[in-house]
Amino acid sequence: MQDEDIHAGPARPPGFRRTVPPGDTLERDVCGHCGFVDYRNPKVIVGSVVRAAGLVLLCRRAIEPRRGFWTLPAGYLELGETAEDGARREAREEANADIRLRGLLAVYSIPRIGQVQLIYRAALAGGVAPGPESLEVALLRPDEIPWRDLAFPSVAWALRQDAEVEAGRASGPFGNPDGETGDRFAPGASGL
Amino acid sequence: MQDEDIHAGPARPPGFRRTVPPGDTLERDVCGHCGFVDYRNPKVIVGSVVRAAGLVLLCRRAIEPRRGFWTLPAGYLELGETAEDGARREAREEANADIRLRGLLAVYSIPRIGQVQLIYRAALAGGVAPGPESLEVALLRPDEIPWRDLAFPSVAWALRQDAEVEAGRASGPFGNPDGETGDRFAPGASGL
Repeated sequence: MQDEDIHAGPARPPGFRRTVPPGDTLERDVCGHCGFVDYRNPKVIVGSVVRAAGLVLLCRRAIEPRRGFWTLPAGYLELGETAEDGARREAREEANADIRLRGLLAVYSIPRIGQVQLIYRAALAGGVAPGPESLEVALLRPDEIPWRDLAFPSVAWALRQDAEVEAGRASGPFGNPDGETGDRFAPGASGL
Repeated sequence: MQDEDIHAGPARPPGFRRTVPPGDTLERDVCGHCGFVDYRNPKVIVGSVVRAAGLVLLCRRAIEPRRGFWTLPAGYLELGETAEDGARREAREEANADIRLRGLLAVYSIPRIGQVQLIYRAALAGGVAPGPESLEVALLRPDEIPWRDLAFPSVAWALRQDAEVEAGRASGPFGNPDGETGDRFAPGASGL
């Protein structure tokens, strides 16, 4: 859910200069020939906490970063799809899971890597099997969740907040836990 | 809130070809020289429905598209900021308004223009005055909202859904109203 910024690309294309475009307030890379403004903005991650009969779906990553660690089915929203469709697609791609969305669990901001994460609550319909980006997928009891082997801080946030909703102690939607920025993976600091 | 996609840029830079990068599932523009993948993803709009003593804040747009029409304080989330900070910044920029966020009202997807909109509920602290992108700003009673002169469909969605929350009839967060894609501005079709 917090891949390295593979979208950042080259620092500045040749012929571009750093300047504030007309009517704008921030510096951007602007082409000195045609005036094209190379806007860069945060990207949207869509994912879900998928439950079936008290079990929760986790996927063990087959790709870097954090290969071998456990994550939620989640990934980049694509052009032309809705957030909900994107969350369903990611569950299909990473776990061959058909899911029914049950509402928005959380919106997280990870400013250092330019991400906004939209995490839904979902129910599983049918079985699961690893997709190409997963080494394995598992339906786990709450006491089986591998807290020390989760791939990213926001995976832990979502699992904890979803458990609060399941227990009837909160309804969400949640944001980042107080003071957490998702900057680094520090299971100890997250109280895990 | 639904600017034309000024970020789309040139169709395909010279030297790039359309192909599926290794490990990916969709075609992207890939540089034939260095392998750089020009990922394009939806952008995040952040904004708020700002209330003060039963009045709601609207801004009349000084810029295209929809110059002269009324909108919520909202705009593109920038790299390095959280969604909440972005919503506060937009209220400051467009209406010189200091706001206190009161929770997430809605997440809208407008797939045709590649937008995800995060709209918060907010309370106004202090006064308002038009920023450079606003011809005027106004604090309006519910019966004064210019439904036929709203800039974008999602402005109407947010105002209606916020009124539901204010009336205690719903708590949100909401998504797009049923069947609405935000594709076109059709006040009649929206039941306004």
